[in-house]
Amino acid sequence: MEEHVAAKMGLVPEPVSTQVIPRDRHAMFFATLGVVASCLERLTIEVRHLQRTEVLEAEEFFAPGQKGSSAMPHKRNPVLTENVTGLARLVRGMALPAMENVALWHERDISHSSVERMIGPDATVTLDFALARMTGVIDKLVVYPANMRRNLDRLGGLIHSQRVLLALTQAGVSREDAYALVQRNAMPVWRGEGDFLALLKADPQVAAVLKPEQLEELFDLGYHLKHIDTIFARVFGEG
Amino acid sequence: MEEHVAAKMGLVPEPVSTQVIPRDRHAMFFATLGVVASCLERLTIEVRHLQRTEVLEAEEFFAPGQKGSSAMPHKRNPVLTENVTGLARLVRGMALPAMENVALWHERDISHSSVERMIGPDATVTLDFALARMTGVIDKLVVYPANMRRNLDRLGGLIHSQRVLLALTQAGVSREDAYALVQRNAMPVWRGEGDFLALLKADPQVAAVLKPEQLEELFDLGYHLKHIDTIFARVFGEG
Amino acid sequence: MEEHVAAKMGLVPEPVSTQVIPRDRHAMFFATLGVVASCLERLTIEVRHLQRTEVLEAEEFFAPGQKGSSAMPHKRNPVLTENVTGLARLVRGMALPAMENVALWHERDISHSSVERMIGPDATVTLDFALARMTGVIDKLVVYPANMRRNLDRLGGLIHSQRVLLALTQAGVSREDAYALVQRNAMPVWRGEGDFLALLKADPQVAAVLKPEQLEELFDLGYHLKHIDTIFARVFGEG
Amino acid sequence: MEEHVAAKMGLVPEPVSTQVIPRDRHAMFFATLGVVASCLERLTIEVRHLQRTEVLEAEEFFAPGQKGSSAMPHKRNPVLTENVTGLARLVRGMALPAMENVALWHERDISHSSVERMIGPDATVTLDFALARMTGVIDKLVVYPANMRRNLDRLGGLIHSQRVLLALTQAGVSREDAYALVQRNAMPVWRGEGDFLALLKADPQVAAVLKPEQLEELFDLGYHLKHIDTIFARVFGEG
Repeated sequence: MEEHVAAKMGLVPEPVSTQVIPRDRHAMFFATLGVVASCLERLTIEVRHLQRTEVLEAEEFFAPGQKGSSAMPHKRNPVLTENVTGLARLVRGMALPAMENVALWHERDISHSSVERMIGPDATVTLDFALARMTGVIDKLVVYPANMRRNLDRLGGLIHSQRVLLALTQAGVSREDAYALVQRNAMPVWRGEGDFLALLKADPQVAAVLKPEQLEELFDLGYHLKHIDTIFARVFGEG
Repeated sequence: MEEHVAAKMGLVPEPVSTQVIPRDRHAMFFATLGVVASCLERLTIEVRHLQRTEVLEAEEFFAPGQKGSSAMPHKRNPVLTENVTGLARLVRGMALPAMENVALWHERDISHSSVERMIGPDATVTLDFALARMTGVIDKLVVYPANMRRNLDRLGGLIHSQRVLLALTQAGVSREDAYALVQRNAMPVWRGEGDFLALLKADPQVAAVLKPEQLEELFDLGYHLKHIDTIFARVFGEG
Repeated sequence: MEEHVAAKMGLVPEPVSTQVIPRDRHAMFFATLGVVASCLERLTIEVRHLQRTEVLEAEEFFAPGQKGSSAMPHKRNPVLTENVTGLARLVRGMALPAMENVALWHERDISHSSVERMIGPDATVTLDFALARMTGVIDKLVVYPANMRRNLDRLGGLIHSQRVLLALTQAGVSREDAYALVQRNAMPVWRGEGDFLALLKADPQVAAVLKPEQLEELFDLGYHLKHIDTIFARVFGEG
Repeated sequence: MEEHVAAKMGLVPEPVSTQVIPRDRHAMFFATLGVVASCLERLTIEVRHLQRTEVLEAEEFFAPGQKGSSAMPHKRNPVLTENVTGLARLVRGMALPAMENVALWHERDISHSSVERMIGPDATVTLDFALARMTGVIDKLVVYPANMRRNLDRLGGLIHSQRVLLALTQAGVSREDAYALVQRNAMPVWRGEGDFLALLKADPQVAAVLKPEQLEELFDLGYHLKHIDTIFARVFGEG
C-alpha cells in the first residue's frame, strides 16, 4: 500500500524508517546547503577583491541617487557581497547541528525537533536570500576592462614569465638554466627597472634560442583566453 | 585533448576550473564523510543503550579471556561504541574547515593546503577505522531476546495501548471517549496495579465494543514485526 | 577623554580598536555561550537517562491534567530535556560563525554584521530559554529514591567490587590474586547465581584476610556519600 | 586531604567532579584555542592583503637565495600567512567536538577519550606552530612606507572627506548641505578629474566657512596617528 500511495504522489518510500524518517537525510540536505553557501562566498570574495580601490576591476552596481558611506560621500563599499559573506558563515554553521541530529535515542527521540524548527526556516530562507542577492550582484556588476588591462600591464610583462620558461625548456635549454635566465630578466622588471619583453629580446642567451617573434607570441594574452567559449558552452550549453 | 585523455583514464573533466580544482568538490566530500560518521554514531547510541545494565538487550562481544574494567572485574562497558561515538564527533567537525576552504582568494590561494593535509588523511582514516570497528561490533553483537521480551512485558501490556485506542475509534467510539477509556485502564497498570489486557476485558464500556478475542489480537507483538522480511529484502536484496 | 568617559559609565576602554571593536571579544562571548549550552545538555542527558522506563530514578514533572503522548495515554516522554538537548546543538553551532567573524578585511569590513544580527538574538534568546526551562525541570524534578535503591541492588552487590579489591590488596594480597578472587566471586553474581557479599564471606581465601564485619563495611553505600555535604557547601556556600 | 595535596602541588581541586573531570573545562580550553587561532587569522588576512601586487605595503620576508613560485621566478606569494589561515580553520573546527564531549552519559562514559586523543595534540601543536610561524612573519615583515603613502595619495585626498564633512558641520553648515558640498567636490576627484583639496579651496560655499589653512590642517595625516604611542604604551607597557 505504501508503494501504491507513494507512486500516486510521485514520492519514493523510505526503505528503512523508524517512528521518524532517519535524520541522515536531513543532515545531507543541510550539509549541501552549507556547501552551496560556501560556493556563493567564493563569488563574494572575488567581487570584494575586484572592488578594492587599488584593484577596481569591477564593482557592485551603485545607483545614481544612492548614498555612499554616511561619512565619506565618494566611498562605495561592497556592501552586498560583504553581507553574503556573512550569510555563508551562518548557513554552513547550521550543518553541524543537523549532523548531530542523526543519532537520536532508539532512533526516535525528539531532540531534533527544536533544531529543525530553527535551522529549517533559517538555513533555507537565508540561503535563498543570499542566492537572490548574488544573482542581482552578478547581473548588475559594473566591470572595468581598462583597469583589468592596467593591472595586467602593471608588472611590465612578468605575468608571461611562465610561458617564457616553458618555451626555453622546449627549445632545449635545461630547466635550471631556463629558470636562471628568466629570473635574471624578471628581477629588474620586478624592481620597476625595465620591460620584461625588451630585456628578454636583449639577452643574448635568450635570443640564441627564441626569436623576437616567438617571444612576442609568448606575450599574447589571447593564449590564456582561447578556451573561454568552450568552457562557457560546456557549462551553460551551446544556446 | 582534455576530453580524450580523461576518457582514456575513465575520468570526467572539471567543467570550470581555475589554477586549482574548485574546493566545493572537496567540501561536498568531507561533508558526506561527516554525515556517514553521524550515521555510524546512530548505531553506536543504539548499542550503548541496549547494553545498559538495566536494559541489557544486547552487548558488544566480550572475549572469554578479556579483562573488564580494571577495578570492577564483572563490568563490561560498551567501549567500542563509545569510542566510535567520539570518532563521529571528530569526522563531522572536519566538514567545517573543508567548507571554509571553498572561498579561496581569486580562486587559487593555497590556504586550503594546510587544511587538506590534515583532514585528508585524518577524516578518511578515522572514518575507515570507525566503519571497520562498527562492522565488527555488529558482526559479533551478543543479543539477548529473553531480555527484550522481559523489557516489553515490564509495562503490563501498556505498549499496546495505541492499537487499543485505534480499535476503539474504529469500532465507533469517539476519539475523546476512546482516549479516556484507555487512560483509565492504563494508569493503574502504570502504577503497577494490574495487567492492561485483564483490566480492559473487565471494563464494561470497552467490552461493549471489543470482544475478548479482539483485544487479545491487539496484544499480538507479531503485528509490529510483519513487515520485517519486506524491509530486509528491499534494503539488502532478495538474496 | 576616552578613559574619563568610560570611567564615568563604568566601562573599560578597548585597548586596541580599529574602526570596529575587534571581533575576538564577540567570538569569546559566543564560544562561552556554546560551552554553557553544552553544560546544560549534560544535565538533559542525565535526566533523559534517569527517566527511561527501565531506569526510572527520576522524571520531569507531569501535571495531573497534562496529556501524555497523543496515542499512548500512559506515556511520559522527557520532552523538556529532549528539547533542551536540541537547543544546545543550536547554540554551540553558532560559535563557529562567530569565530569566522574575527578575521575581517583590514580589520573593518562588515561581513560580521549579518552574522551578528542573527546569532546575536538567536544565541542569547535560545540559551536564556534553555536555562529557564532547565531551571524549571530541576526545580520540579520528580525523584524516585526507591527505584534508585532497586537499581543499585539489582546487581547483587557487585557495585562494591572495587572496594573489595582495594581492601584485599591493602590486607596484603597481590593485585593479581585480589583481582582473581573478586572475579571468581563476581561472575556467578553477574549471571544471577548468588549474592556477592554471601559468596565472598564463604570464600576461604577471602575470609582468611577479611573478616565478615570488614566485608559488610565494604558494602556500606554511605561510604560513597560521605562527602556530599562538603561538596554542596563548597559549590553553593555554607548557607 | 584533597585540599592539602592540591595546595602542596599548586593545584586547585575540582569543586564537583564525577568519575572524570567535567568536560566543560576542556571545552572552554579548546574554544579558547579556536578564538586565539581566529585572532592569528586576522593578522594573516591583513598581511595577505598588504602583500597583494596592487597594494604591496608589506610582504613576508623572502630570503635572497629563496626560490619563488616554481614557474614564475619573480613571484612571491604570502605562503606563510596563507598556511596559517588554513591552520586557523583547523583549530577552530576542533572546538565543536570538544563541546560535544561535555554531555557524557551519567557524566562518565569514555566517548570523549577518542576525541581528546586526537584534538589534544592536534589543536595544541597546530596552534603552537601557527603562533611560532606568525611571530616569525611579524618579526621579519618587510614594510614599504613609500607604497603606503602612494596608496593613500592615490585618491587625490578623498580619504580626508570625513574630516571635511565634520568641520563644515562644526562651522555651522547643516548636515545635508555639508554632505552635498563634500560630494560635489569629491565626485570629480573620484573620476580622476582633480585634487580634492584644490577643489574645496576653490568652492565659494566651502571657502565661505573654512579658510585655506583650516582646510590644509584637515588634510594632515598626523591627526590619525596622534594616539599611536598611547595605544602602544597601554598594550605593551611603557617600557
